[in-house]
Amino acid sequence: QIDPEKHEKLILEIIKNLYSKIAEFKIGQKTEKTLSPGLEVTFEKRLTYADVFLFSLISGDWNVIHHSEEIAKRTKFGGRVVHGLLTTSLASALMEMLPGIVVLLSVEFQYIRPVYVGDTVRGKAVVVDRLPGNRLRVEVKFINERNEVVVKGNCMVLVWDSVNL
Amino acid sequence: QIDPEKHEKLILEIIKNLYSKIAEFKIGQKTEKTLSPGLEVTFEKRLTYADVFLFSLISGDWNVIHHSEEIAKRTKFGGRVVHGLLTTSLASALMEMLPGIVVLLSVEFQYIRPVYVGDTVRGKAVVVDRLPGNRLRVEVKFINERNEVVVKGNCMVLVWDSVNL
Repeated sequence: QIDPEKHEKLILEIIKNLYSKIAEFKIGQKTEKTLSPGLEVTFEKRLTYADVFLFSLISGDWNVIHHSEEIAKRTKFGGRVVHGLLTTSLASALMEMLPGIVVLLSVEFQYIRPVYVGDTVRGKAVVVDRLPGNRLRVEVKFINERNEVVVKGNCMVLVWDSVNL
Repeated sequence: QIDPEKHEKLILEIIKNLYSKIAEFKIGQKTEKTLSPGLEVTFEKRLTYADVFLFSLISGDWNVIHHSEEIAKRTKFGGRVVHGLLTTSLASALMEMLPGIVVLLSVEFQYIRPVYVGDTVRGKAVVVDRLPGNRLRVEVKFINERNEVVVKGNCMVLVWDSVNL
């Protein structure tokens, strides 16, 4: 009899290894800087077709403009694009890079330019306000390899002290 | 010599099969209703630890509150929670269920209550406005199994005619 939790862990390890063969495996590392307005973190990642495929698996969005080069070519985009919400999933890593245990309160993102499958995007987050109740307002921006802004937005987060955990 | 595209496809098929063993594989199906204000689509999915793990793989966010039951227990949440941006990745499926080829222009989400690993969330999207340039304003809401609202938000999308594709 296999322990179901061990079985799940084993399957996820295999998935991680397979994913790493066809995508960029990266972990957003905690900054060592002190939390204060002006604090900036960056996270860069190449968004491969494996990322698009995994995002479709978890989200249930199998829109053809992400999967069919043939159909995507005939649209205004001219090629397969990455899900908007996949690009901005990198904001999750940016928030996690801030000091403490970071909890998301709200987000708003504007998708300005398409991100194509295979593009490398660079996310930048800047703490702009420290508000009562350990809340932070963080500005985020994503640029592509041609230095064009692809997404602009804001996140509100709550920060818990991780010292006693 | 293996064709790299075929190799990638094969690996992704294996990942899909492994994922389906430990998670809910679901596809947001296009509605057959006509596009007009009031049009509503719903998408329900159980968010398992496999979804959390895959979201961490693609986003780079390995925050302990999603992965360590031991640490998460000692926080205000009392247990492992799903990434906020994983819950709202289901908004991508909701948008894709609308008629035509749907392109995301902007989103805003408020995370009201935590979603725990294993919770089933039900997303509902309602077209509230049809704006010039084939744009739609869509209200979204996610509820948990206890009928509590976990996320509220809005999406702006562009709709392309899919007839000639």
